[in-house]
Amino acid sequence: MKRIARLLKEEDNFFIASHVNPDLDALGSAIALALGLKSIGKKTFVFDIDGVPEHNTFLPKHEMVTTSINCPDMEHMTLIILDCNKPQRAGVDCDAFKNSVVIDHHETESDFGDYRWIEPKTPATGLMIYELLNEMGITITEDIAINLYAAIALDTGTFRFSNATPKAFRAAAALVEAGAKPGWIADNMYQNWTPNRFDLFVQYLQSFETEGSIGIAVASREMFAQSGTTPADTENFANYPLILKDIEIGVFLRQVDTDHWKISLRSKGNFNVANIAVQFDGGGHRNAAGCSIKADLATTKHRLIEAIRKSS
Amino acid sequence: MKRIARLLKEEDNFFIASHVNPDLDALGSAIALALGLKSIGKKTFVFDIDGVPEHNTFLPKHEMVTTSINCPDMEHMTLIILDCNKPQRAGVDCDAFKNSVVIDHHETESDFGDYRWIEPKTPATGLMIYELLNEMGITITEDIAINLYAAIALDTGTFRFSNATPKAFRAAAALVEAGAKPGWIADNMYQNWTPNRFDLFVQYLQSFETEGSIGIAVASREMFAQSGTTPADTENFANYPLILKDIEIGVFLRQVDTDHWKISLRSKGNFNVANIAVQFDGGGHRNAAGCSIKADLATTKHRLIEAIRKSS
Repeated sequence: MKRIARLLKEEDNFFIASHVNPDLDALGSAIALALGLKSIGKKTFVFDIDGVPEHNTFLPKHEMVTTSINCPDMEHMTLIILDCNKPQRAGVDCDAFKNSVVIDHHETESDFGDYRWIEPKTPATGLMIYELLNEMGITITEDIAINLYAAIALDTGTFRFSNATPKAFRAAAALVEAGAKPGWIADNMYQNWTPNRFDLFVQYLQSFETEGSIGIAVASREMFAQSGTTPADTENFANYPLILKDIEIGVFLRQVDTDHWKISLRSKGNFNVANIAVQFDGGGHRNAAGCSIKADLATTKHRLIEAIRKSS
Repeated sequence: MKRIARLLKEEDNFFIASHVNPDLDALGSAIALALGLKSIGKKTFVFDIDGVPEHNTFLPKHEMVTTSINCPDMEHMTLIILDCNKPQRAGVDCDAFKNSVVIDHHETESDFGDYRWIEPKTPATGLMIYELLNEMGITITEDIAINLYAAIALDTGTFRFSNATPKAFRAAAALVEAGAKPGWIADNMYQNWTPNRFDLFVQYLQSFETEGSIGIAVASREMFAQSGTTPADTENFANYPLILKDIEIGVFLRQVDTDHWKISLRSKGNFNVANIAVQFDGGGHRNAAGCSIKADLATTKHRLIEAIRKSS
């Protein structure tokens, strides 16, 4: 990290990019780093191929994120890739730049980047940017604080996940002192539903059924049509089956096409849903994984339940 | 606070009581304080008139909380009332004790207590107990840490409410270092639903309707009967209408009897629902208040909507 801090002080022009479908950790980290670098006189260009989704436009200075890669002088710029570790995932061509930096908290086998700082045990890239700005002696303004707090809040489930570390809590304390408002940020994160999404949610909950400790719920194309929603409206739905005390494994089936389902698997405790997902050419982590299955709904459910039973 | 810390060091026998229908802040504070005092050789008796509800039995050493007030030697004991400030609310007769201490974070006009420590701006009584134990030089064990973390987590909505202060975050950091597990505690707080409660929740959401920026939902006696639930199963339901972006005021109507409704009011931002509740002989805070109305459902809704419109 100190090597990267030194590099950022030496260089003057930065191209900051994050991943496709950016979340609050990607966006908050990118905006905060850009604001920090600007405050010490650096030039920054902040790029995300998918831009800022409507529901994340509460982030201060989100307007600086552009979806256009038309940036002159790339050959004199340092590329900084955040919250991912491959240029493809950020939608950029690394050869165009003078040199490259990777700052990420995801595990990876990629070795991309002239300067790499990858900490899989850190809960959020936002927490790494917080430490980097402190190391560089950059003042955390209110705008920076809000962006970093939102980044950390998202990836720790506002401190409900097991990755909520003492470091994350202490950073949150300092960011609140610098002007981040936990209540206002949480409202923007969790209380921004459209009525259509609410309709879909009720239909989704009505589809809920259990098989032993497996909880299964569905969002079908019919439900999307009836409620006027899109798959993006199902964010977090996969987590709901686990609110039940006796449900250890949650299965969320989202219809992609006739006889084609995208599956999100969630678990509590030690059951490893990644082991299930890989059987259907998917992947993920112990408590959150995904795959897709081409079959009718009954067959899809049956195959998943069988795979889970064999693995239990 | 220092006066109370001195008193607790001087006295040897403590009767610790919290309020009716105890929540995690009441119970976690009481258990943590008792464990702390025991660790320095004091005798403690922990009383709650309603005992520990099933869903809070994840708190370590919750077995020390008794519902029986049959405690000998009260006249030699110091009464400590936590998370409330009147002996009636704790179900105890203060005259039976040698002296009395009140530790609470609720606003009050009561002046009960020989030793009073009331901090309405502190998010949780658990945070006050954390500070008190530190002041007394008592080691925060893992059991104490879990109890205090749960107390603070509940009253800050696991750090989603505007009362999540830097102090609360720093205490959380230290409590995690002392052994509190944020993921495990949050699972126990939020992922402990019964199937019956889930059924009630779906019915409750189906009743949802809006009037401008007011969101209204109902739990009727019929729903309780059909789902096999009780009013206790509606904990937190009042907050759900506010997940909608355009809803500023949430109204939750819970049926008590024929033509008798208990109302929970919630708001985002500046709308003061306490002003509505007082019109129906209720009370509360700006963003959370309650009252009850004796009328049929349509009339009850109408009266509330009118009161809210006039106050807007």
